[in-house]
Amino acid sequence: MPKQDIAGGPVARTLSVIGSSWTCLILREFLVHGARRFQDLHEDVNGSGAATVAEGVRAGGKHGGLERHFYSMSPPRAEYVLTTKGRDLGPILSAMRDWGRKYAR
Amino acid sequence: MPKQDIAGGPVARTLSVIGSSWTCLILREFLVHGARRFQDLHEDVNGSGAATVAEGVRAGGKHGGLERHFYSMSPPRAEYVLTTKGRDLGPILSAMRDWGRKYAR
Repeated sequence: MPKQDIAGGPVARTLSVIGSSWTCLILREFLVHGARRFQDLHEDVNGSGAATVAEGVRAGGKHGGLERHFYSMSPPRAEYVLTTKGRDLGPILSAMRDWGRKYAR
Repeated sequence: MPKQDIAGGPVARTLSVIGSSWTCLILREFLVHGARRFQDLHEDVNGSGAATVAEGVRAGGKHGGLERHFYSMSPPRAEYVLTTKGRDLGPILSAMRDWGRKYAR
């Protein structure tokens, strides 16, 4: 295996996306619920605090997995939706959930 | 989603296993090559240094994904093999590789 495949290969790059806090906190919420307003997310992951939720949403946007969608301009009202890139993380999360349920206590 | 599902749920637990250094360095080697002696691993992931390889093997053993198998007792010669638990991480790694190739540069 070439060195660059170890440190910078596709598996490592994916890990850098799903390994950040937004995955467990945020991505799963969207996979379950679809579009979410920030305040809904905040209620869902309430144990984590608004700062963590905001950080997760920011990370999701930075990685191109989430995008903001205005459903009203006056007054301005936005919700976040998964992009195709974000939705395509779904099978990975499902496989991780199955493995975790089977093997990790 | 209950709070415990966020921080300590099956996805998070799986992430704690594959998010450690042993995954990219070691697990993929075993999925490709099968049983490996420590010195073979060291050569494969040579850019990383023996300490990193040793850390990866130790983490793999601790998580129950790798086990040591003596194929000669005199002189003692051992190789490491994936357990079923370790092999079952294969589909997750494959899905991560596919996503990384498609979306992450």
